[in-house]
Amino acid sequence: MAVRRHIERAWRDASVAFGFEEIDGPTFEYLELYTAKSGPGIVKELFSFKREGGDSTYALRPEFTPTLARMAAARISTLPLPVKWFTMPSFFRAERPQRGRLREFQQWNVDVLGVGGPAIDAEVIGVAVAALERLGLTPRDVRVKISHREAARAWVLSMGVSEQNVPAAFDLLDRKPKMEKAAYERAASEIGLLFRDAAEIKGESLDALRCALDAAGLAEWYDVDATIVRGLAYYTGTVFEIHEASGAERAVAGGGRYDGLVELFGGPSTPAMGLGMGDVVLGLLLADRGLLPKDGADLLPRPDVFIISGGDDAAERELPRMVASLRKQGLHVRHSYKATRNVGKLLSDASKQRARCAVILGPELASGSVKLKDMGSGEQRDVQVANLAETIGALRSRA
Amino acid sequence: MAVRRHIERAWRDASVAFGFEEIDGPTFEYLELYTAKSGPGIVKELFSFKREGGDSTYALRPEFTPTLARMAAARISTLPLPVKWFTMPSFFRAERPQRGRLREFQQWNVDVLGVGGPAIDAEVIGVAVAALERLGLTPRDVRVKISHREAARAWVLSMGVSEQNVPAAFDLLDRKPKMEKAAYERAASEIGLLFRDAAEIKGESLDALRCALDAAGLAEWYDVDATIVRGLAYYTGTVFEIHEASGAERAVAGGGRYDGLVELFGGPSTPAMGLGMGDVVLGLLLADRGLLPKDGADLLPRPDVFIISGGDDAAERELPRMVASLRKQGLHVRHSYKATRNVGKLLSDASKQRARCAVILGPELASGSVKLKDMGSGEQRDVQVANLAETIGALRSRA
Repeated sequence: MAVRRHIERAWRDASVAFGFEEIDGPTFEYLELYTAKSGPGIVKELFSFKREGGDSTYALRPEFTPTLARMAAARISTLPLPVKWFTMPSFFRAERPQRGRLREFQQWNVDVLGVGGPAIDAEVIGVAVAALERLGLTPRDVRVKISHREAARAWVLSMGVSEQNVPAAFDLLDRKPKMEKAAYERAASEIGLLFRDAAEIKGESLDALRCALDAAGLAEWYDVDATIVRGLAYYTGTVFEIHEASGAERAVAGGGRYDGLVELFGGPSTPAMGLGMGDVVLGLLLADRGLLPKDGADLLPRPDVFIISGGDDAAERELPRMVASLRKQGLHVRHSYKATRNVGKLLSDASKQRARCAVILGPELASGSVKLKDMGSGEQRDVQVANLAETIGALRSRA
Repeated sequence: MAVRRHIERAWRDASVAFGFEEIDGPTFEYLELYTAKSGPGIVKELFSFKREGGDSTYALRPEFTPTLARMAAARISTLPLPVKWFTMPSFFRAERPQRGRLREFQQWNVDVLGVGGPAIDAEVIGVAVAALERLGLTPRDVRVKISHREAARAWVLSMGVSEQNVPAAFDLLDRKPKMEKAAYERAASEIGLLFRDAAEIKGESLDALRCALDAAGLAEWYDVDATIVRGLAYYTGTVFEIHEASGAERAVAGGGRYDGLVELFGGPSTPAMGLGMGDVVLGLLLADRGLLPKDGADLLPRPDVFIISGGDDAAERELPRMVASLRKQGLHVRHSYKATRNVGKLLSDASKQRARCAVILGPELASGSVKLKDMGSGEQRDVQVANLAETIGALRSRA
């Protein structure tokens, strides 16, 4: 959970900096919502169920976009545009768990609906990069690979691929990174697709996207790559994926422009651009780059103070009161649940729990004061109980 | 989502102040996990499903405790005690949605496992109170109603209820707040349960709990109430519920000691105390007390700055660069997506979006500066672009 919350914080902070608002939808939807977007083939990848005595079939959500399109179709005509939404809930896929793919996972979704154009495309790609930067990744660790449906189409037609073979050419480009060179060349020559460098793809729409990305300060993060195809029936313009720089692992994120989807769900024609970024591949990448502490401990909240009773009656009576009072003042307070009153052993527990300081309740209580030990510097001094919360608060903000 | 995150923040902050660590489990479990705790009657309240070609039945989680007991049974012998865990995920109940009960809802769970005693019981009740206090509730708004299984048993036996009628007496006490006085008296006299004030329940175990609650500074929050019974087969000591002070609405929270549960799930005998607090009744209560802004807007992040282009070429070129650069420096930055360059209209948009300040890109850009308007005071001045992030940051921390 410490790692998951660390990743979520980067997603949330980037979303807020870019002016997105958080939404959520239900964890399960009618099955038809997913087949409407992806066809009946999706069913075997879903956890779906009927209720006893009911006719409807439901499915645990495998992705957010159909929910988003349904919500947008119902409401977008009443909302100020653009709608800028993000969400980061759990999703479910009924497939064999493997490296980079789990049955239950978190995914961040960011979408802009109602306004189109390359500046919006760059804003969505920009928020993804901003989250990755907050997690410590650089353009040497990850690459944003961009393409554009129109440019890719013009590009393959310019090589001599026939109109009817354009889908086959896209399919082949999509599979190119996983194919043997010889097999790719054989299949490509059959449909007239030349063996050109996928970075050579050109076109006006792609130029406009590059301009917008450069203006948004993203020049060093992206590469043009015609092998980025993604859902053929779904994306209508810009498409992109974010990959580990050497090409290891699955995509960290992906998305693009899907101007037809809200209409498919019964809404008005609506420009739309979005991205999805899961926690699983991203977590593997962060761990690989040493950007996650091995046991996650450094990501956990540190106790502000650990309170120790020296064992006399006054100290035993004071301990629960002081714990409650300092917590009420907003401090993260711990104490030992052990029977021992050996102060040395208890200080060692305070240190193991990474407390910033320790309070020792001893004979000084008679004069209204306690010993306060800074666990970082080892420095120890007497502090009046009345000033304790303030003194500990100051130690915390200094750390 | 703004309201949900506001409530979650109170739950999380209270949990951390009390030294609890966050965990999560899967959204669905084997159905048997729930019938093992609650019997076959629970099935009709669950969303359950089988996978095609599979034998197992799964259920969306209706509560967290069985997952917690399963996890504890498997691991508790290897963990330092006490284990202090919290979680706040989604849960699901297949019942007709009604006021205070939704099919999908969030619930905060807090549990202490491995160490028993009244001080632990008071700590769990204390963390619930701390969260409610952070949300602005006082002992005049909510009451913690406490009872204790042993004390309740001794109390009903002392009235002359026979050993075999103890469960019937508990059941009757549980229903008492919802029954007509005459009906209650008739049923009570049949089993020898006298019509005594439920606050009169006494006993050593209850005295120890009251001492611990008082030491933890909770004296003004709780009432003793023998009608608090909860799951008969499940709780073994302290039981409590938190209710709106006048008794309106369902319980805001409930919990108690369940020392037998980890053993039931195949683990070692383990003292355990926990609570659950849902977001639905709590949300109704906060709204009723005026502790939630009506449209939730005050709970949304406020933009630090809204950037406006006056319309000349230099300003149009600078706008996307400045937006990207200020966001990169951690600021929440917005701008207009409209075609208009009417500065007055755009300042009005900045105000509607509650931006703390606005930047106007005008002819001053030629000398490297922009107009910065404090949207609170209305004050306006020229600021060098190089100093802009710092100046806006200072405005934000002053606000």
